Amino acid sequence: MPSKIILDCDPGHDDAIALLLAHGSPEIELLAVTTVVGNQTLEKVTRNALSVAKVAGLTGVPFAAGCARPLVRPIEVAPDIHGDSGLDGPVLPEPELALDERHAVDLIIETVMAHEPGTVTLVPTGGLTNIALAARKEPRIVSRVKEVVLMGGGYHEGNWSATSEFNIIIDPEAAHIVFNESWPLTMVGLDLTHQALATPDVVERIRAIGTAPSRFVVELLEFFGQSYEEAQGFTSPPVHDPCAVARVIDPSVMTVRRAPLDVELSGTLTLGMTVADFRRPAPEDCTTSVAVELDHERFWSLIVDALERIGEP
Amino acid sequence: MPSKIILDCDPGHDDAIALLLAHGSPEIELLAVTTVVGNQTLEKVTRNALSVAKVAGLTGVPFAAGCARPLVRPIEVAPDIHGDSGLDGPVLPEPELALDERHAVDLIIETVMAHEPGTVTLVPTGGLTNIALAARKEPRIVSRVKEVVLMGGGYHEGNWSATSEFNIIIDPEAAHIVFNESWPLTMVGLDLTHQALATPDVVERIRAIGTAPSRFVVELLEFFGQSYEEAQGFTSPPVHDPCAVARVIDPSVMTVRRAPLDVELSGTLTLGMTVADFRRPAPEDCTTSVAVELDHERFWSLIVDALERIGEP
Amino acid sequence: MPSKIILDCDPGHDDAIALLLAHGSPEIELLAVTTVVGNQTLEKVTRNALSVAKVAGLTGVPFAAGCARPLVRPIEVAPDIHGDSGLDGPVLPEPELALDERHAVDLIIETVMAHEPGTVTLVPTGGLTNIALAARKEPRIVSRVKEVVLMGGGYHEGNWSATSEFNIIIDPEAAHIVFNESWPLTMVGLDLTHQALATPDVVERIRAIGTAPSRFVVELLEFFGQSYEEAQGFTSPPVHDPCAVARVIDPSVMTVRRAPLDVELSGTLTLGMTVADFRRPAPEDCTTSVAVELDHERFWSLIVDALERIGEP
Amino acid sequence: MPSKIILDCDPGHDDAIALLLAHGSPEIELLAVTTVVGNQTLEKVTRNALSVAKVAGLTGVPFAAGCARPLVRPIEVAPDIHGDSGLDGPVLPEPELALDERHAVDLIIETVMAHEPGTVTLVPTGGLTNIALAARKEPRIVSRVKEVVLMGGGYHEGNWSATSEFNIIIDPEAAHIVFNESWPLTMVGLDLTHQALATPDVVERIRAIGTAPSRFVVELLEFFGQSYEEAQGFTSPPVHDPCAVARVIDPSVMTVRRAPLDVELSGTLTLGMTVADFRRPAPEDCTTSVAVELDHERFWSLIVDALERIGEP
Repeated sequence: MPSKIILDCDPGHDDAIALLLAHGSPEIELLAVTTVVGNQTLEKVTRNALSVAKVAGLTGVPFAAGCARPLVRPIEVAPDIHGDSGLDGPVLPEPELALDERHAVDLIIETVMAHEPGTVTLVPTGGLTNIALAARKEPRIVSRVKEVVLMGGGYHEGNWSATSEFNIIIDPEAAHIVFNESWPLTMVGLDLTHQALATPDVVERIRAIGTAPSRFVVELLEFFGQSYEEAQGFTSPPVHDPCAVARVIDPSVMTVRRAPLDVELSGTLTLGMTVADFRRPAPEDCTTSVAVELDHERFWSLIVDALERIGEP
Repeated sequence: MPSKIILDCDPGHDDAIALLLAHGSPEIELLAVTTVVGNQTLEKVTRNALSVAKVAGLTGVPFAAGCARPLVRPIEVAPDIHGDSGLDGPVLPEPELALDERHAVDLIIETVMAHEPGTVTLVPTGGLTNIALAARKEPRIVSRVKEVVLMGGGYHEGNWSATSEFNIIIDPEAAHIVFNESWPLTMVGLDLTHQALATPDVVERIRAIGTAPSRFVVELLEFFGQSYEEAQGFTSPPVHDPCAVARVIDPSVMTVRRAPLDVELSGTLTLGMTVADFRRPAPEDCTTSVAVELDHERFWSLIVDALERIGEP
Repeated sequence: MPSKIILDCDPGHDDAIALLLAHGSPEIELLAVTTVVGNQTLEKVTRNALSVAKVAGLTGVPFAAGCARPLVRPIEVAPDIHGDSGLDGPVLPEPELALDERHAVDLIIETVMAHEPGTVTLVPTGGLTNIALAARKEPRIVSRVKEVVLMGGGYHEGNWSATSEFNIIIDPEAAHIVFNESWPLTMVGLDLTHQALATPDVVERIRAIGTAPSRFVVELLEFFGQSYEEAQGFTSPPVHDPCAVARVIDPSVMTVRRAPLDVELSGTLTLGMTVADFRRPAPEDCTTSVAVELDHERFWSLIVDALERIGEP
Repeated sequence: MPSKIILDCDPGHDDAIALLLAHGSPEIELLAVTTVVGNQTLEKVTRNALSVAKVAGLTGVPFAAGCARPLVRPIEVAPDIHGDSGLDGPVLPEPELALDERHAVDLIIETVMAHEPGTVTLVPTGGLTNIALAARKEPRIVSRVKEVVLMGGGYHEGNWSATSEFNIIIDPEAAHIVFNESWPLTMVGLDLTHQALATPDVVERIRAIGTAPSRFVVELLEFFGQSYEEAQGFTSPPVHDPCAVARVIDPSVMTVRRAPLDVELSGTLTLGMTVADFRRPAPEDCTTSVAVELDHERFWSLIVDALERIGEP
């Protein structure tokens, strides 16, 4: 039986690939796609999500827009990485899907409450504003959700600061809310995603598929690769967000380690750091885990397989 | 034309009197009453609000429950001040009103959006969790609301710490959100409300009304007086929340001063402090004011008049 | 018997007047003058102190230079208030006194330890770096000092930020050290010193003395007045530092209030705030007080008298 | 030519071994030993240092006591690790050396200033209070010192909190001062010292030396091993402090990596964290390095050799 997920994202190059991976994987049943300010403004990332749906031939899934700004901090977007549109590189098709009229927070709540307890996995790949608001507005979702598998943070790596990752630092209070709820939570952070490099051979495997969606992905990766080289000195870009989806498709694609996790809200140097406590074996009641090591080959095969299944929509 | 208000409260002795004041004043049109965790748990304060409605003979106004916990911090309630029920002292009647099925956040948003721009005043007298979530979920309410007149904070006084007041410190992140939005905001803080003392002559004036609601108020004030004497050393209790309602009924009941305002989120000694900058005249675009001096006689006359108007419902 | 004091200062216009006041008052025995970075660099304020000694005809008192930078924070000086030299306005005479070879911290320690316990008062009128280091290097001075009477901070007023005063915010960690030691400490802060305005009639009284030192003070006040008008909007300048010396000369020159005091080290808005807790009467063992109300007439008479006593050195 | 060092320590089991290592190594010229509150009170660690000197037959080197408490924070000692005396386990001989009369801060300053520029290495193995005060009292030592090689911190490991190490967290402000000065600084932190485990074979090698000092070390390691097993779950204890001395004796005993380093002063979860920024190659002017990988065999051979050289004093 496929895993039911809600993908909460801010496309974003790697979000776009995460959406394609979810759509093209039979192990996933995509219940809803929600958007949140992050890599670009809410308006841009929402349009991008709908454009990717068009590229993927994705229909029948509700898409809803969520929060246009973080809880407490001012908006910070990432044009250096994702360009002015949030999805620079390929030509973006005009969206065809209409947005669901509900707010993302309500779509998340209603979707979780409409399914059996323990069946819906939240997969956030952007800032955690929507998820935090959903947990505060309807606390019953916390025990009803199966788990949260999110891309964000890093126990030993940072990108937006020496210690902190973009998705967390743009809304650390939201992250603090999500990390401190009692749901099972797996943090797929930079420690893991910096292993998910789109190396030239990976790009070639995708190019070789030869479909429109695979060309779209190649164009995304080419732009993304250049951004990451210029902004952070990577020779191949780390493709963060699909790692969280891959974890849901096939948990064996990465090793994880249970550890208490929390989010720093007041540090001068460490604001938004996701602090894992590895000093001792995790206590019995610890519900948080961090992703440690990626099966690089298996990961990229999941993406290639998904794109092949999507074909020419 | 009466002022349309939404009262967002956590009854709470002074919240109860604020509700009676709003109900009994022709200058106020009460559009909705929403509740939020604060003086006691959400469940208790919501029941208390409905009991007060019963005491006041208040019908035809939607009551909705909101957030059961602050955004980021753990729940902190105030049984030392308000007792175990949140409204200890009088016998509380069984509520008759049914709660609106909407979440308080949605009731606030829908009420504001359903009325003409610039006509609805928000009057929060508890923690600011509901108002903050409403502003984040539907940013358009910020420019649509007429103003926010809140009880909370203090520019030179604190109660829960040397610098901070209960309503703000229980959810400082929510307060930060509300204080930093662009709506006109008047902070009716401890500097003002510590002037609103229910002195013995005030209690006698209320007792003399001789109705069931006035007896209810007297019983509230007797319990409240004892709490404040034991917990904070007041000889007569400060009756905070009605001050905010009184400001809407009759702005001349207090003087205010325009000043930039913000909420401290990271101080060791000053967490939750509402910082007013009085060093210079407020800049032209400053939309925040603090309440400074109360017309004590006028204030209590508003309450006595409201109770007389309510009569025996 | 005169009060023995060590004046730790950063001249600075008001420091210069404080030094003249101490020198010209028979109620004061000036044991040592030490300098610390603050209004200007250590080099400049040290030279200024020696120049003022020359103006005042002050000899036989050791002058020593202390810390050239705050404990933790980068150097912040105040050229907008004190000019490029730290003492702009009058022509500064060439110093004649030679500096003591000891570090200010050692001069403070040795002076305190060389006198009877309970006889030496520390009067800091700059940042508290020297005093903090002395207390850490030789903890025995803490119980040996009679009291600390300092100019700095403010319980309800700020100048360098909405909540914080210059002497404290330039080295908040040092202030935290000094405020948390067990010695009796009186904070003469902005609440008090903003009452010590050099109004035109005050300036005229000083001018009328007609001596070289009084002309020097008038020239200081004229420059200082212009600075404060431009930088902070005062019509007459507040002459902070002599207030602390005046308190030692004649305690009745101001009222004080006992209250627990501490220094905020981590606030975003409140860094360096001196937090007084007025919620309750001060506990029995509270050793800290804040200055509240100045006897303006008496204060300026002390200064006029001191200048008359100094005469033409 | 041997490296001239000042050892600033808080013995402490591993400090004691560091002192023996320094004394028994011809590559080291021990100029002075200074003590600072840390593993135990200043009084205890100072007595311990003198007892270790007696064990080692160490004479002709000045020992001076320094700061009895951290700069800003209250004293925190580590009896769980080092016992009530700070050096529990062996019988401690009565000290014979007399303490130098100078304060450690002055001994450090005078020693550095008395030697040629660029010849003296500071080796702090406790909290950094003395070193910080020395740098503030006499800023010229900063450019005169050859380098600081300290035991403390950790870029990815903590012990006193998830992110922070004991020597840093007990006086983070002092650490901030020391880490932010311009001297070359090598942080030998937990990342390295958790590799310096006194495994049973190591203990046997030391026991086999058969001298009184080696028996002393074995008894230290036995107590230390039990403490670390109970307090932090180690099967063999990490012997931190000698790693810093070993780095001076033979830089090749460990690899290091240049990286910008700073100390977090305000985090709720991360107070005292030593933050290394590995996102980019260190800039040209970066003077800080972190120790990464230990040559375990070589390290323990340095200690065995030193003990053999000490023989039976």
